[in-house]
Amino acid sequence: MSAVPSMSLIDLQDPIFRAHEGGKLGVHATSQLRDAADLSVLYTPGVAAVSRAIAEDHALADLYTSRHNTVAVISDGSAVLGLGDIGPLAAMPVMEGKALLFKHFAGVDAVPLCMETGTVDELVEAIVRIAPTYGGINLEDISAPRCFEIERRLTERLDIPVFHDDQHGTAIVVLAALINAARVVDKEVADLRVVVSGAGAAGVAVSRILASAGVREVIVADSRGIIDRTRGALPRHKAELARLTNPRQVSGSLGAALEGADAFIGVSGGTVPERDLMRMGPRAIIFALANPEPEVHPAVARRFAEVVATGRSDFPNQINNVLAFPGIFRGALDSGAKRVTEEMKLAAAGAIAGLVDSPTAAAVIPSVFDERVAPVVAATVAGRARR
Amino acid sequence: MSAVPSMSLIDLQDPIFRAHEGGKLGVHATSQLRDAADLSVLYTPGVAAVSRAIAEDHALADLYTSRHNTVAVISDGSAVLGLGDIGPLAAMPVMEGKALLFKHFAGVDAVPLCMETGTVDELVEAIVRIAPTYGGINLEDISAPRCFEIERRLTERLDIPVFHDDQHGTAIVVLAALINAARVVDKEVADLRVVVSGAGAAGVAVSRILASAGVREVIVADSRGIIDRTRGALPRHKAELARLTNPRQVSGSLGAALEGADAFIGVSGGTVPERDLMRMGPRAIIFALANPEPEVHPAVARRFAEVVATGRSDFPNQINNVLAFPGIFRGALDSGAKRVTEEMKLAAAGAIAGLVDSPTAAAVIPSVFDERVAPVVAATVAGRARR
Repeated sequence: MSAVPSMSLIDLQDPIFRAHEGGKLGVHATSQLRDAADLSVLYTPGVAAVSRAIAEDHALADLYTSRHNTVAVISDGSAVLGLGDIGPLAAMPVMEGKALLFKHFAGVDAVPLCMETGTVDELVEAIVRIAPTYGGINLEDISAPRCFEIERRLTERLDIPVFHDDQHGTAIVVLAALINAARVVDKEVADLRVVVSGAGAAGVAVSRILASAGVREVIVADSRGIIDRTRGALPRHKAELARLTNPRQVSGSLGAALEGADAFIGVSGGTVPERDLMRMGPRAIIFALANPEPEVHPAVARRFAEVVATGRSDFPNQINNVLAFPGIFRGALDSGAKRVTEEMKLAAAGAIAGLVDSPTAAAVIPSVFDERVAPVVAATVAGRARR
Repeated sequence: MSAVPSMSLIDLQDPIFRAHEGGKLGVHATSQLRDAADLSVLYTPGVAAVSRAIAEDHALADLYTSRHNTVAVISDGSAVLGLGDIGPLAAMPVMEGKALLFKHFAGVDAVPLCMETGTVDELVEAIVRIAPTYGGINLEDISAPRCFEIERRLTERLDIPVFHDDQHGTAIVVLAALINAARVVDKEVADLRVVVSGAGAAGVAVSRILASAGVREVIVADSRGIIDRTRGALPRHKAELARLTNPRQVSGSLGAALEGADAFIGVSGGTVPERDLMRMGPRAIIFALANPEPEVHPAVARRFAEVVATGRSDFPNQINNVLAFPGIFRGALDSGAKRVTEEMKLAAAGAIAGLVDSPTAAAVIPSVFDERVAPVVAATVAGRARR
């Protein structure tokens, strides 16, 4: 932390900085306070009756507090965008942005909660302690592999939905896009030979959801190459990937994995050389999702693949979590779901894919601003929850 | 927790319950999200520049996030109103009401944070961990004596204002009212012989601020009678009161304390018998602040005292914390104060008192809805902070 920021970072006249001035969120009262009579109803002494009722029956908290519509967007700032461990204060603008999207797309009141980082135990204990305030918890930008254990333990201990968006938001939208991309290239999703580059939060979740969706061959590569059962000393999440994926036990580099592959899904933040992409099979699919710089420029990717998607808004097929998380939480809150199950995630992906009537190479996924998406995802999730 | 609430507690047509339906707070965006261009400024990829700048210079978080105007209203639900330990869910309506007052009177964006209770260590650790999100922390309805230690340790560890309103909000407004009551009865504040009934959060803080304000004789009584230096096995906060107060070392019952007293300040939640009040000196002052039932009905109190105040809006002289906390935090946030100092509290009390031009027995304190109060308190606190 330097006292004077470098000028290359900050230009106060920069429209980006001006747009963030003063922050991007406010809190407002939904009940009118005009006079002493209002005060005595909304606050003491009237509020005591409401508190006593909730003490008697905790379920009333969902009727008489803002909890039922409030989601905490929680980060420790340990893996923010592509910036790494920049801490809770620097994570705030991202979490506020996320909260703004929750409100805009799904009417969810989301509040940022940026925490000093710590051990898994410390973070889990703090989050469990504050959880009564919220109807759901969106974990965000927490470094792997801690994020897996944190989400697992919170899900076990809390009876509200806990959803690590870097994992599941990405996985849901990737699956939605892949379903439609498979239609474009006239292949069955289950038959696709998929290579996932990256074994962090997104890579693990994408691999898992593809397995749940019935894709028979997924091969995952990290910076050391293909994850197979012969690699020693794997951390828990990679050992699970070694069991779950790579049925032919291919070994070697990313290039070896791409030999004859139908789809490349990049969630690594690195780059992929043309000589590797060249080895993919006919009518290939490339999702280069690293932000802001895709693993391969879409213009280059199109030389090797029929369908190309990125995370960016300035190219066709933007794969963006905002297609999933607002509707996921809207549906979970509306239905009182205590978990976001694997089945809900699969159904949400199918619902998003289904909104594209006739997928083409340039349109395998709805626009981020397609207002049908969040309500359809919400209805799908709520429907599964109510079964 | 019973599955079916007793009907005496809940009548869904009750206007009180209807006013709290759905909760009382919402979150809104202060920046407009209209299209992909806005999205790329407010969220990725644009937001990355803001996050990087804050990572370089943490002070920028106050300019480019909502933190600078956000206060957490934190309770573990262990001492809510007069209801006792009703837990975090049941505390929510009160904390939301408080947040609504913060916004209404001082434009502060306050968010409730209701926590599972625990040891002092556990609560302090959780609050320290989430503190980066906020510009200030208002502690509320946390049981004594834990509240003293929690506030002390948070103040030591954090560089944002931490303010336990049940203590200091009450103390500031009591002192303000007492300054003007002394004028009405033509006595010097320093010369008042004051009896405080109650040695919980409010009693301790009132006794401390009176000592800071120069009142030479304060006697505190709890349910066992007068606190003096001969009483054994006192908890830490009462041992401190024994040192700080009762210079004549009076012993015995509340009635003994009231012998010749100038002012009675009830913050106990109990009652005080007429035979005790009868022992007070001439031109006495009675503040019966228990809510919703004052320690003595104002009509009765007026038989023994020239100035009578309560916590209620339906009698003259309502002593209500809302006269203090919105302006205190407004001033602290505006000035970047890292603490709410004793000097700021005294100055705030003086400023509130000063807003009553010509105090009378029926008007020693401004109305809760006097719109001058919060700005004047804020300016006073900010002025002290900037010195």
